[in-house]
Formats: sequence, structure tokens, C-alpha cells
Amino acid sequence: MLDNIRIVLVNTSHPGNIGASARAMKTMGLAQLYLVQPRDYPNAEATARASGADDLLARAVVCDDLDSALAGCRWVVGASARLRTIAVPLLLPRDCAGQARQECEQGEVALLFGREQSGLSNEELDRCHALVHIPTDAAYGSLNLAMAVQVLAYELRMAHLDDDWQPPPEIGEHTPLAEVDEVERFYAHLEQALTELEFLDPANPRQLMRRLRRLFNRVRLDRNEVNILRGILSAAQQAKGGGRP
Amino acid sequence: MLDNIRIVLVNTSHPGNIGASARAMKTMGLAQLYLVQPRDYPNAEATARASGADDLLARAVVCDDLDSALAGCRWVVGASARLRTIAVPLLLPRDCAGQARQECEQGEVALLFGREQSGLSNEELDRCHALVHIPTDAAYGSLNLAMAVQVLAYELRMAHLDDDWQPPPEIGEHTPLAEVDEVERFYAHLEQALTELEFLDPANPRQLMRRLRRLFNRVRLDRNEVNILRGILSAAQQAKGGGRP
Repeated sequence: MLDNIRIVLVNTSHPGNIGASARAMKTMGLAQLYLVQPRDYPNAEATARASGADDLLARAVVCDDLDSALAGCRWVVGASARLRTIAVPLLLPRDCAGQARQECEQGEVALLFGREQSGLSNEELDRCHALVHIPTDAAYGSLNLAMAVQVLAYELRMAHLDDDWQPPPEIGEHTPLAEVDEVERFYAHLEQALTELEFLDPANPRQLMRRLRRLFNRVRLDRNEVNILRGILSAAQQAKGGGRP
Repeated sequence: MLDNIRIVLVNTSHPGNIGASARAMKTMGLAQLYLVQPRDYPNAEATARASGADDLLARAVVCDDLDSALAGCRWVVGASARLRTIAVPLLLPRDCAGQARQECEQGEVALLFGREQSGLSNEELDRCHALVHIPTDAAYGSLNLAMAVQVLAYELRMAHLDDDWQPPPEIGEHTPLAEVDEVERFYAHLEQALTELEFLDPANPRQLMRRLRRLFNRVRLDRNEVNILRGILSAAQQAKGGGRP
């Protein structure tokens, strides 16, 4: 199960944190490390801090953008140090690990960690199905990046070891959930169609696409649903084009 | 309760680990740091890695021997990387934290962390009422000292917060959820628009509306979202009608 979990570090500043994160992961049996635009990598400090986990660094996938790092994922969780006003579920690490255990029986799961100073951007948070918050002390919340990776990796491992745990019986249809890149193509289609319908003004988009992303990220679309929605968009585009096929 | 818990680092080699441990403690609300014969302390690297937790370092109690560090303690637990053949209870971090919570209602509790390379000596282990073991991967158990402090401090904090901690209710947007009759009017509008777009054939509706209902019922639409979706439907109807308002 832990093989289906990837740790995605976004735009990390300090190479030492990358190395320490790799070590933290390996102690807990995690192996999939993705680095999105690391500031300074590869780097000797990363290798030094990785200690005996340098094989994870050697196999780390360095990505130019978040899309590549999330391709093929079924469930995306963002680590958030702040309690944000965003309408996605906010989980404690233990609950996050429990849900990850369920999700990764059926597909890939990504845990996103943002920049040391500023965390994840709003655009990156909009890619998340849930946020996970390590409940730090109110007086001092300055948890080091690699320490946060360690705590979440530890909870993932504990969920993995928990022999008593049973996944609840599946309810409803068994159509597989759409992967994040399929859903991204739906968003691109949606934006294009709304522009053609003149419902979205690219010069003044306001919060429209963000609100729609939040809505559909909550729903966890399956593949049939993505196909239905894209069919509706195509029908609307065709109507706007005057009935041409 | 957390004020009654002391973290005791025995004979630590790397001052960076002392600083990182102080930072780990402070993020989790722990404040009592004891250092037994640190190899190289005080040290600039310790201060640097402590980041904003340098006040914990300033107040740290440096001891010549373990006896001084344990004076006044009621319950002593040693962190053990290896599964030792020693006749004291071996606890998982969560159980250790649960017991610590009980113990420290009545007195002081100490968590002992040994040397980076060799852990605690047999003599030091003999001072412990229990051992706590972080269940690392069998293939790679090289957990960094400060990471071990972070994981145990995290579990102590979770035991402390236990049922009291709730994500603040103000998380998320405050737009009220749509009531069922508003959502029903949206479904009626959706069915009408899909019929006009010739995406839905009333003579052969198959399961389309049922599938769309399932999708939007999962999402729990709020009022803004209902308005946005109905706006999109109106734009599509207008497009089909040839641009008439």
C-alpha cells in the first residue's frame, strides 16, 4: 500500500530539507519522492542529510510543474500550516492517514508539501481534495518541512500497520474515480466552453474557475461523470457555434 | 499537562540535533529540555537549527549525569530504536503518549533519547519504566534523533488534545448550503437545458438525470454554486436559441 503514496515537495528552498525528507520517508517505508521545481537540487547538502536514503533521492522525480507530479493520482492532500478559509475538508494527520489507506488500495495518492516560508499557493491548494493540518502549538507553529513529512509518514505507516483496520464495504457504483489529469482536462474544457458561451470573461475571470474547481473537487468525479459533463460542454459549444457539428 | 513532560537527550553528538529537537518540542507545546553531557554545547549550529525555539535552548538544563536529569520524575520512558531483550514494557508511541498523559497528571514524566549512533546504554535503560519504539521500516531504521523527538512530541500533543481539538468551525466559506427545493429547481432547469441542447432525449432519457443527481447530491451545493450553475445553463440555452436573450 505505501508504494502507492507519493510525497510531493513543491518549490523547496533548502536542499537539506529534501534530503531529510527522503530519510524520513524511508524510515517509514515510503519510497516515491516527487520534487516540483526545487530551488537548488541536486545538492551535496541534500545527499548528506538523506544519510542512507540517498537511493530515494536518486530515484526522485523532478518535475517542471505540479501537473506532472500529480499525473495518475486519485487523491491529493495538501499539508497546510495555516487554517485556511477554503472549502475543502481539513483533516488531522491520523484521519488523513486512515483515508489515504483506503484511497491507495484503488490508486495513487499524493501528499503535497509547500514552500518553507509560504506553503502552498492558492492555485496549488485548489488541486487538493483535502488539507491536512498538524495541530501545532498556537504560540509556535514553525514546524520544519522535513519534520512535517516525518509526522505524516509516521501516521501513514501506523495506518498501514494497523491490523484491526478494515475498509468499509463499498457503497454505490464501482466506476473508477477519474485521475487528476483527466479532471484537469475537464477543467480546461469547462473554461473553454464558458468562454465561448461568454459566461466567463477572460479579461475579468473573477473567482469563477476557482469556485467551480472547489465544487468539482468536493465531488470526486468518476470517469462516467467526467464523460457526461464533457458531453454537455460539447453540446453547448456546438449550440453556440450555430448548430454546426 | 505538557509542562510536566521533560525531554532528556543523553550524550548527544551533533549540536544540530539539539537545536532541531528544541524546535520540534516547541511546535508541539513541550518546553522542558534536559541535556545530559552533550558533546558540543552550546553551539551556533544548535541555535541555528532551533530557529524560533532558542528560548527552549536558553532554558535547557545541562546535567552532568542522568540522575540529575531524572530527579523528581515519576515515570521514565526510554526511546529505543532496537527491539531489546529487556524485561520492561515496550510501547508504541501512541500508547506511550496515552500513558504519559495519565502519569503526568500526578507528577513529572521523562522521555529519554540516547546517542545518535548507539542509543541508550544498558545502565540507562535500567532506569526506564518502559521503552517506546517507533516502528520503522525493517529495511531502514535510521531515524534521526530530532525526528524521533518530533514523532513522540507529536503523539504527546495528540494525547493532550485528544477529543478536545476540533478544526475551528469558521473553516470554509460561509455561504449556506442550498435547501432541497432550490436544488430541485436546479435539476429541473438542468433537465430543461439538456433537452434544448438535444443532449437529453426525453423519449429515451436512459439514466442521465439520475446520474447527474447522484453527482450533485454528493457535492452538497451551496447557494452561490446553484446560482453559478444555473447561470451557465441559461447561457447555454441562450446560445442554442441563437443568441436571443
